[in-house]
Amino acid sequence: MRPDVLAVVGLGAIGGSVAWQARLSGVPRVVGFVPDPIEGAAAVAAGAVTEVVDSPASAVRGADLVVLATPPHIMLDLIGHLAPILEPGAILTDVASVKTPVLERAVTAGLAERFAGAHPLAGTHGSGFAYARPDLLPGCVVYVCATGATGQAAAGAVMEFWEHTMQASPTLIDAAVHDRQLAWTSHLPQAIAYALGNALARLALRPESYGSGARDTTRLAASNPELWLDIFRENREPVLAALDGAGTALAELRSLIAAGDETGLRAYLDRAAAFRRELGA
Amino acid sequence: MRPDVLAVVGLGAIGGSVAWQARLSGVPRVVGFVPDPIEGAAAVAAGAVTEVVDSPASAVRGADLVVLATPPHIMLDLIGHLAPILEPGAILTDVASVKTPVLERAVTAGLAERFAGAHPLAGTHGSGFAYARPDLLPGCVVYVCATGATGQAAAGAVMEFWEHTMQASPTLIDAAVHDRQLAWTSHLPQAIAYALGNALARLALRPESYGSGARDTTRLAASNPELWLDIFRENREPVLAALDGAGTALAELRSLIAAGDETGLRAYLDRAAAFRRELGA
Repeated sequence: MRPDVLAVVGLGAIGGSVAWQARLSGVPRVVGFVPDPIEGAAAVAAGAVTEVVDSPASAVRGADLVVLATPPHIMLDLIGHLAPILEPGAILTDVASVKTPVLERAVTAGLAERFAGAHPLAGTHGSGFAYARPDLLPGCVVYVCATGATGQAAAGAVMEFWEHTMQASPTLIDAAVHDRQLAWTSHLPQAIAYALGNALARLALRPESYGSGARDTTRLAASNPELWLDIFRENREPVLAALDGAGTALAELRSLIAAGDETGLRAYLDRAAAFRRELGA
Repeated sequence: MRPDVLAVVGLGAIGGSVAWQARLSGVPRVVGFVPDPIEGAAAVAAGAVTEVVDSPASAVRGADLVVLATPPHIMLDLIGHLAPILEPGAILTDVASVKTPVLERAVTAGLAERFAGAHPLAGTHGSGFAYARPDLLPGCVVYVCATGATGQAAAGAVMEFWEHTMQASPTLIDAAVHDRQLAWTSHLPQAIAYALGNALARLALRPESYGSGARDTTRLAASNPELWLDIFRENREPVLAALDGAGTALAELRSLIAAGDETGLRAYLDRAAAFRRELGA
């Protein structure tokens, strides 16, 4: 679908970019809501939305597609709140990094046929509209999750929105599979950056003591903590499993260095180097 | 000192940049050695050296300053090899990320008065002359380590070279203090990137499964494994202590998530976020 009226609730890095790209793709009305009026004014000034309104409820009025782009715990509340006031035929979707609890909440709210989850792989450590970019989403991988058999049409509409209006690459995935995979590919790197940040913070060294490597490896720690509190809570079991995997890998590295096992250590370093080179820049 | 003839042994990212900046600062002769003739030709073509020679021994002939910029284990061999053939009055220095074993080797080789160690905080995950840049070193922090009281003059000359010829910010530091600090600020982020790379490599997912966060956090894993085998071996005990610190921080994070301790987790995330924001971009 290409909406005539798109509502975006939350105009941070992702929500702001969704709105902006929709405008660039010719969606005539893009209505935004964001709690901070300064952020809303910035979105209007940038041309990312055609108007901002003063509540999520006002945003969904008249909208045929509603994108929730808030931290997960706010999103979970909003789904129940907005379900009764969506326009007839309107589709509700989201952009959260964890999908099972969002889909469950939508089904509980009676939206099994009108909700599909989405997760664009375009996260950034920056938060707020200042990090929204019109080119953030085109080309990016987007995971789309249906509520089940009854949600196929909604999922199809959301796939179409991401493919044609956002010019991204949507792919259908089971929500539980998504959450387990993202626990490793996204939530674990985030957790690692937090752990390294905590370990280093204790040293109380000056910023000049760090080179670009420490900056790269801890960059994610600058993310919005509120967002990550939610993700770690909502995806707890898969995240704990991934943390255990990282703990095992770290213990293995420690053993190889402690034992002076040059052959084993070389294989370990080579494996990580090959993995990273395959990822590309 | 500003050398009239500078020899640089190893023309990788750091050695190549040292040579290049020396040329830009007006050092009349910059003689390079690198085992791979293609790299040597690239350095000559870029104007980073005035000539390349076919051995480290040929490079030091006529040089008043010699910079060793090879992986540490080669450097340790070279110090003994080059000591007897340095020009009278020539100063020898290096750029390794671990300083105690390099200084010890220099003293053993009879160079206590003519050697000072240096470590520019300008590492990159890239290796080879392709990653050398004329603007890599100006402005960067450089740790300089004296062999002891007898090495003060050499340390002064090396400080002067980094300040005036390289246009960097040299600072004197005790070698053992340096190695303990760098175990945390540099070797630990590197180890963490290797551990995360190993944990993720096992999943065998496609590169498109990863976003920019995983790429940032694992970027260091693409570094030259040979260099890091050396560093982990030569700085073993400090690196193991730092790994234990990271292991503790990771276990703490796991406990907070497992317990659903929102207050403790928020404090943990906030601490890392504050640390990272202070580091700057």
